[in-house]
Amino acid sequence: MRPDDAASESGSGAQPARLLLVECPDQRGLVHRITGVLFRHGCNVTSNHEFVDEESGRFFMRTEFSGEMEPGVVLRETLAVLPEGGEARLAPTGRRRVVVLVSREHHCLAELLVRCTYGEINAELLAVVSNHETLAPLVNRFGIPFHHVPHEGRSREEHEAALLQLLEPLQPEWLVLAKYMRILSASTVARYRHQIVNIHHSFLPAFAGAKPYLQAFRRGVKVIGATAHFVTEHLDEGPIIMQQVIPVDHRRGPADLAQAGRDVEQMVLAQALRLVLEERVFLSGNRTVIFD
Amino acid sequence: MRPDDAASESGSGAQPARLLLVECPDQRGLVHRITGVLFRHGCNVTSNHEFVDEESGRFFMRTEFSGEMEPGVVLRETLAVLPEGGEARLAPTGRRRVVVLVSREHHCLAELLVRCTYGEINAELLAVVSNHETLAPLVNRFGIPFHHVPHEGRSREEHEAALLQLLEPLQPEWLVLAKYMRILSASTVARYRHQIVNIHHSFLPAFAGAKPYLQAFRRGVKVIGATAHFVTEHLDEGPIIMQQVIPVDHRRGPADLAQAGRDVEQMVLAQALRLVLEERVFLSGNRTVIFD
Amino acid sequence: MRPDDAASESGSGAQPARLLLVECPDQRGLVHRITGVLFRHGCNVTSNHEFVDEESGRFFMRTEFSGEMEPGVVLRETLAVLPEGGEARLAPTGRRRVVVLVSREHHCLAELLVRCTYGEINAELLAVVSNHETLAPLVNRFGIPFHHVPHEGRSREEHEAALLQLLEPLQPEWLVLAKYMRILSASTVARYRHQIVNIHHSFLPAFAGAKPYLQAFRRGVKVIGATAHFVTEHLDEGPIIMQQVIPVDHRRGPADLAQAGRDVEQMVLAQALRLVLEERVFLSGNRTVIFD
Amino acid sequence: MRPDDAASESGSGAQPARLLLVECPDQRGLVHRITGVLFRHGCNVTSNHEFVDEESGRFFMRTEFSGEMEPGVVLRETLAVLPEGGEARLAPTGRRRVVVLVSREHHCLAELLVRCTYGEINAELLAVVSNHETLAPLVNRFGIPFHHVPHEGRSREEHEAALLQLLEPLQPEWLVLAKYMRILSASTVARYRHQIVNIHHSFLPAFAGAKPYLQAFRRGVKVIGATAHFVTEHLDEGPIIMQQVIPVDHRRGPADLAQAGRDVEQMVLAQALRLVLEERVFLSGNRTVIFD
Repeated sequence: MRPDDAASESGSGAQPARLLLVECPDQRGLVHRITGVLFRHGCNVTSNHEFVDEESGRFFMRTEFSGEMEPGVVLRETLAVLPEGGEARLAPTGRRRVVVLVSREHHCLAELLVRCTYGEINAELLAVVSNHETLAPLVNRFGIPFHHVPHEGRSREEHEAALLQLLEPLQPEWLVLAKYMRILSASTVARYRHQIVNIHHSFLPAFAGAKPYLQAFRRGVKVIGATAHFVTEHLDEGPIIMQQVIPVDHRRGPADLAQAGRDVEQMVLAQALRLVLEERVFLSGNRTVIFD
Repeated sequence: MRPDDAASESGSGAQPARLLLVECPDQRGLVHRITGVLFRHGCNVTSNHEFVDEESGRFFMRTEFSGEMEPGVVLRETLAVLPEGGEARLAPTGRRRVVVLVSREHHCLAELLVRCTYGEINAELLAVVSNHETLAPLVNRFGIPFHHVPHEGRSREEHEAALLQLLEPLQPEWLVLAKYMRILSASTVARYRHQIVNIHHSFLPAFAGAKPYLQAFRRGVKVIGATAHFVTEHLDEGPIIMQQVIPVDHRRGPADLAQAGRDVEQMVLAQALRLVLEERVFLSGNRTVIFD
Repeated sequence: MRPDDAASESGSGAQPARLLLVECPDQRGLVHRITGVLFRHGCNVTSNHEFVDEESGRFFMRTEFSGEMEPGVVLRETLAVLPEGGEARLAPTGRRRVVVLVSREHHCLAELLVRCTYGEINAELLAVVSNHETLAPLVNRFGIPFHHVPHEGRSREEHEAALLQLLEPLQPEWLVLAKYMRILSASTVARYRHQIVNIHHSFLPAFAGAKPYLQAFRRGVKVIGATAHFVTEHLDEGPIIMQQVIPVDHRRGPADLAQAGRDVEQMVLAQALRLVLEERVFLSGNRTVIFD
Repeated sequence: MRPDDAASESGSGAQPARLLLVECPDQRGLVHRITGVLFRHGCNVTSNHEFVDEESGRFFMRTEFSGEMEPGVVLRETLAVLPEGGEARLAPTGRRRVVVLVSREHHCLAELLVRCTYGEINAELLAVVSNHETLAPLVNRFGIPFHHVPHEGRSREEHEAALLQLLEPLQPEWLVLAKYMRILSASTVARYRHQIVNIHHSFLPAFAGAKPYLQAFRRGVKVIGATAHFVTEHLDEGPIIMQQVIPVDHRRGPADLAQAGRDVEQMVLAQALRLVLEERVFLSGNRTVIFD
């Protein structure tokens, strides 16, 4: 897939030379030791963020650096200065391999298709997969493979088996649920552990069950929100990446609230995905640490 | 209580000459008929809002008008053109009689004290009542009567009886719960039906139980909100008047989230109260209709 | 152009049976008289908004109504009850005829293409016209006619003459400048008086001249905004339809600020256009009166 | 001045054991070297932020640490590892010495008085100084010294001389202009260089001259904002600390816009001052770098 236009004026596309990502139990002198490794290899730190989650005692660090180095050696030396249980990796260069799952709503998908086309998010869109055929025409407009994996007449196990069979050869790094209205089984979530991003509406107060916008209307909510989060076995309760709300008032009917919901969902998912794909988001228990 | 300063440059204080407030079952020609009454009395409509809640089939109208008229006659003629079950009233002129209930947190109370002092909300502050003595010094600074009605060593019935005994002679039109941390009994809520405004924090998702800011921190929420609402027998589930949120991130600890919560609570309560006291808020089932 | 999908779950699409739009010098009894016309024709007012701009003394009214009537008769009778200088019209049914002008940036255009495809704004997209060829592939994806009207090697008069020649047979009701980077001449603006909507970035403080995002970065702005407005002969100073901002901080470089600017521009233009095309926006001098 | 209440549940008050603040030309290995100094003294870094302004090539770092150390020695060793032109300091413990200057508007001042009373901002309020007597009653309520330095009948030089004479013995670390409506002379600004914080309204677009809210009303702005910034000799063009906006619409008259402006000003000034007094704000040319 090639952009329609030169990406030259498009966003924060310029990836850093390299990204070192570290997390480990906190300990005195960590920043000093880790930057020391890069320093000794003659690398120049161009941006550095670190954070200690005092609740869990975990240390997180994201370091952008430039300079020639031997990745395997740098990684090995970095791990050597970390406490036991520490993890370090160098982010791969190039775009992240992404598959998008959808059902029938177009708004989030369309936003991702446009942003990928113009290089505004760091993703190579491998395919769009849906349990409905509704969005095939939209996906076809952008020249991305569309796969229909129907759920009708299949048990849930059969459906997810077909889904996984389709996904495996694509080797996605990330699955994005862009209004995918099926609940993934625990085993599928486990297969792509910490690699699935979801978007859902959010309200104050929360409304469980069907027709949430009608419930929100009847309760007279004054803000409509959206939450982008990682998917865990606890469904919509995974770590939150981004939340935003927009104001509404009594003059808006249920259909207007739903439109407002779509507006905020598409913006939140696109911005959350930008953060994830630029390796700015760490997990700390059920929280995220975000270096934006 | 007198303002420190001339209210001349202070806000929307200028009350309309008169306010006609109507609600009734919707019917063809209502606006035409109601404005006709004012028209015949030689009054001039300076601002008019109406709304039909299609869910409930109720019609709401708030009309600001000027001109000399006989209030009793206008009201009687207005009621005569409404369908059965219609209600109409002329808002009293002058400031609304308000009592504020608090516990130990100062932020919402302080905001109300300042705004009343400077005539920025349409309230005469009759008294501040608390189940603690903590805020007496603050209230005393503003020359408002402070009443301590302790709950310790008393049954809930005894405590509320003492509270009501204090309130009755004050004849408040509105009770404002400005971080009052006791749950009012159904009978007290019924005594001041649709006359009690409350403020509480609100989160996405919602957190029940103790230490909500610690829960919100552990869940990694990205927005902190506040909801101002009318109090009904269903506690925090009464009709919503105003909601706002402010963004937070992982760097904020539980104490910072609590500060953010206070910031948004004080602003939301002050703005909601302005709307209520200017007679801009109608109830329609469990929703509000707000003509701002 | 046909939507990919049924519009059934898409937004506030359901147009009211009919829309009566009135503006005139303010006068006692106007609402009474105008609703009386509809009342006598057996029409039912389903939503009504009116506003008096006290600065200018102008009265504005937007009435949604249902019921069979003779449009010419209703209009004539409505005009008869208005003061001299009053205007009334019944909005045409069906979608508004829209042409979009662009240069090389895709974000606002892509948003409009998607929303028109799915019936989320009340527009029939007649064509996209550009002074560059850059966006032809994007427009072609959506099956909309793309016209390249190059400005190079032509005087400004020649260029605009070519533009007008292209536009005339399309008979657009609205021109949307979706990041069209040429200044329209006064005569073109006059030809489509009050029919041109523009989007531009907005900053606190304002930055004139080239590279505004670099200027904003050097000044350390904390919010980036966008303004949708009508185009008048005074360029970017026409009546404002919608403004929004999003927060930024020192960690964002000029390219990130530009991305933030695009994010807010596309959302503001789409929302402003929804209001305009649903006939919710009136002009009052250099202000807008918006019944949303 | 003592808080009315225990500060225990009040905000982020808990100051870090110590704060090391560094800025210098950027160079390879700075974080490594600086944290090495603390490491060798047995101190534990509890929070660390650094930033390189690539435009100016300046490095900024704010380090919270705990542990016993000899301040003079640590500072000397830190300076020794910095490039030429580097600066380092240990923030003083305890509250910052603050004087507030006002004219006649109460809203920002009242917010600061309340927050100081309850320990929500890290300030010792030494005095409030005004060119009018209007706000004396409000200041007196909080037991803070109020000084009236009238400007009438005095030349600007005389007035500022009197002001400086009053300020000198108070030895303020910060001057806060909380709606002080006089322009400070260049020499006064130079005397308190980078120590003066101001709040002013901000609009899109900007309105120069008198009655800005009336201008904003006539232009139909849809957002009203406020900007807190450092004062430089270029008046309102100093480095921006914080900006926020709130939405408004055509129904709000000039007085309502002014109230909205006050609401956002008081919140922005209070939040900006919290950042400044917690030593979270660095200056980089005409920008701020904020570690919040």
